[in-house]
Amino acid sequence: MNPGGSPMGNPVLEQPETTPGPKRDAQSVIEIARAAKRASRVLASLPTATKDAALTRIAAALEHEAAAILAANAEDVRAGEALVASGELSRALFQRLALNPDKLRSMIDGVLAVRDLRDPAGQLLSSTLLDEGLRLDKVSCPLGVLAIIFEARPDAITQISSLAIKSGNAVILKGGKEVERTMRALLQVMRGALAGDTTRPEERDADPLAAGRVPADAICGVYGREAVQTLLGLTDTIDLVIPRGTNALVQHIQRNTQIPVLGHADGVCHIFIDRAVDLAAAIPVVVDSKIQYPAVCNAVETVLVHADAAAAVLPPLFDALHKNGVRVRGDSRAQALLPGAAIERVGDDEWHTEYSDLVIAIAVVDSLEAAMDHIEQHGSHHTDAILTTDEDAASRFLSEVDSANVLHNCSTRFSDGFRYGFGAEVGISTSKLHARGPVGLEGLVTYKYQLSGSGQVVRDYAGKNARPFLHRRLEV
Amino acid sequence: MNPGGSPMGNPVLEQPETTPGPKRDAQSVIEIARAAKRASRVLASLPTATKDAALTRIAAALEHEAAAILAANAEDVRAGEALVASGELSRALFQRLALNPDKLRSMIDGVLAVRDLRDPAGQLLSSTLLDEGLRLDKVSCPLGVLAIIFEARPDAITQISSLAIKSGNAVILKGGKEVERTMRALLQVMRGALAGDTTRPEERDADPLAAGRVPADAICGVYGREAVQTLLGLTDTIDLVIPRGTNALVQHIQRNTQIPVLGHADGVCHIFIDRAVDLAAAIPVVVDSKIQYPAVCNAVETVLVHADAAAAVLPPLFDALHKNGVRVRGDSRAQALLPGAAIERVGDDEWHTEYSDLVIAIAVVDSLEAAMDHIEQHGSHHTDAILTTDEDAASRFLSEVDSANVLHNCSTRFSDGFRYGFGAEVGISTSKLHARGPVGLEGLVTYKYQLSGSGQVVRDYAGKNARPFLHRRLEV
Repeated sequence: MNPGGSPMGNPVLEQPETTPGPKRDAQSVIEIARAAKRASRVLASLPTATKDAALTRIAAALEHEAAAILAANAEDVRAGEALVASGELSRALFQRLALNPDKLRSMIDGVLAVRDLRDPAGQLLSSTLLDEGLRLDKVSCPLGVLAIIFEARPDAITQISSLAIKSGNAVILKGGKEVERTMRALLQVMRGALAGDTTRPEERDADPLAAGRVPADAICGVYGREAVQTLLGLTDTIDLVIPRGTNALVQHIQRNTQIPVLGHADGVCHIFIDRAVDLAAAIPVVVDSKIQYPAVCNAVETVLVHADAAAAVLPPLFDALHKNGVRVRGDSRAQALLPGAAIERVGDDEWHTEYSDLVIAIAVVDSLEAAMDHIEQHGSHHTDAILTTDEDAASRFLSEVDSANVLHNCSTRFSDGFRYGFGAEVGISTSKLHARGPVGLEGLVTYKYQLSGSGQVVRDYAGKNARPFLHRRLEV
Repeated sequence: MNPGGSPMGNPVLEQPETTPGPKRDAQSVIEIARAAKRASRVLASLPTATKDAALTRIAAALEHEAAAILAANAEDVRAGEALVASGELSRALFQRLALNPDKLRSMIDGVLAVRDLRDPAGQLLSSTLLDEGLRLDKVSCPLGVLAIIFEARPDAITQISSLAIKSGNAVILKGGKEVERTMRALLQVMRGALAGDTTRPEERDADPLAAGRVPADAICGVYGREAVQTLLGLTDTIDLVIPRGTNALVQHIQRNTQIPVLGHADGVCHIFIDRAVDLAAAIPVVVDSKIQYPAVCNAVETVLVHADAAAAVLPPLFDALHKNGVRVRGDSRAQALLPGAAIERVGDDEWHTEYSDLVIAIAVVDSLEAAMDHIEQHGSHHTDAILTTDEDAASRFLSEVDSANVLHNCSTRFSDGFRYGFGAEVGISTSKLHARGPVGLEGLVTYKYQLSGSGQVVRDYAGKNARPFLHRRLEV
């Protein structure tokens, strides 16, 4: 096998359908990564139309090979049932594994939707005339090679692959064991489409850009648990790691690599109900933030209530949550204000808890400052909201709380790339560097400075009688 | 001692002038970092005018206390002479240690120049109406706490402190032992100025913004070698590490922290002389790139010459370099084309060498592709240039070479924040994430999403009959 083979090579030969889970040694993972790096260099210079044509081909191939993909997935699902029974696979992950024709259709539509987004690479970000005949351009460009480490979800494979190609990056996918057959089938189809191994030769021949194709190695797969550790060590080859899975997976990756990681380990989100509050609006916002999708990272986990409003807020808030099946926990002051509810006490060391379920913690705080201190101490810098009619308090909260998303008078569930209007979401980042909050296609590019001159030397611009720079900003 | 004391406290009590190099334990470094974090929260919300006023006060205090600062520096210089003699301090570092009234004056002017730059924080980057009454603002904001680890240069202290305050960040400085007395003196003056401990009370009373002062803990210092390891472990407190020193220092820091590091370990910069080249312009560019300041990171280390031009290029290139005192090394093909020069052979494992001196390596390559392969394999993604009259070759080089700075027909020495017109340079980054290339004040800020609503819940925008989003981009 030659995983770094010619981009035009036969993908069936490159990625043979062997028995699931073969041991690939580290060397083979390294070779695959090198092939992805080579592909990324080709990809970085391709025009938007060529990348778009590749996504069109991928979508068509996925549609044409739907039966084979669904058959492979059915095998994964059958094997997954046994893994669930033996406790090796959680039911939550298992539920995200199964495909059906509708789900596959929406995956294909997703590929086409990404194709139709604006190309984030190759944009002229600024242009400065340093001197006559010496122009500095700041141009966006792809990061290079992405490594995606994910669990269960087959839709992540097509989504991330199309985001990568659209932005000019090569991608190395590493899926969990439970999704391996599905992933092999999807990769065979997508790589085949890139290699021009289409079942419709008339399409291929009509493609005016066939000469500058996206290489098949723009989408690579690696298999087996050991592959993760190898990937995380390839600091010279891989430019960004994107984990998609449980908190434990993300934390493991963040702690075991020097490669930048885009993502977030946990989402311990807060709502602070201020002393000046419109209760009729506030309570539905808390309920929505908790129950609209409790398992996701932007669901609220802790409600902080201003002491001056607590007596008025807590009883109706408890009732609304309780009615919606939410188990309420609280500190001693919340307990005291809800004598009939017999709510469970939250331990001092439990405030940094992502319940990801219909459970919520309530604390009474003495001030806006105390609320912000609590969020700084126990939060995860993901999404935090204030519910208040006091504009000054809202303004301080939005300015001082150090989170990617700070919200005023609306549900925490809004912090999401699609709701924000980004068209696609690469992930949500709680890192402050590069991309923060919901990250769209822009998170997959960087920039470079291109300086074009006509023989200029620095000596002329230094020392006594130095020639001055113009530094004239040009329109872009 | 209470290093996390009140921002208004007496800095002399907070940072006592003890004997140089006292052992501070890790706990005290952690307390100092926490104090910086608290200061950063105050600082993040201060208006530009307050930050500017603080920088004005710092500049005035540095001027007023010039004699004390120069006296402390003279002690460092005396002690440094002994360290050079014993081999504990390199002569290159020692030469950067000494202050005089002119150098101090230019450090003070630097503080005022940073004050007069545009505030990078608090800028509205974009604004989107998600729906009527639900507005999403993307706003730039400080990173939080910066840790600067540097060697020898006293000017780094005032420069980084003023860049930090201007951008709304707190800063923890850790200088080398050789600069400790100077650093203590500078910090005492700067922290005193922030705390309002000015020797001109009439100025303090006239300050309309005295109520919202920059806390003294916005500028903190830690001492002793052990402090570095403690700082590098404070992932929850420190947002960015900026090393300023030798490659060895930077590499040590990059390998020993999970905190993002802004900087670059090495600068192995290349010039490729293409087959189509204007020799009269090209040779001075190579000479300038090597000799204008050989010790810095953007000096050229390797020249790659297209085989078709090598016979014409090498003899005059060698003569020009030789005449300027540059020792030329080369591969076997370069040796063969310079039979009379008897140049030293570069070993296969020596191409990733930053000479930082009047030494240069020359290789003959067969094509543009071979040149780009060499740069990918041996370069450091810092600055690489092509000298050519062929626009297509230039365009491919600028697009495909994966470096922060890619140059056409000009000296590598141009890749610099001041020459690029940024007004200030925080550092040069070879990381692709966050900030790449020369980094100005923008490298010290991130952004957050502020979403303001009036009770909106996600349930209304989900499922069947979902209310559509407007996603209307507003003018900023």
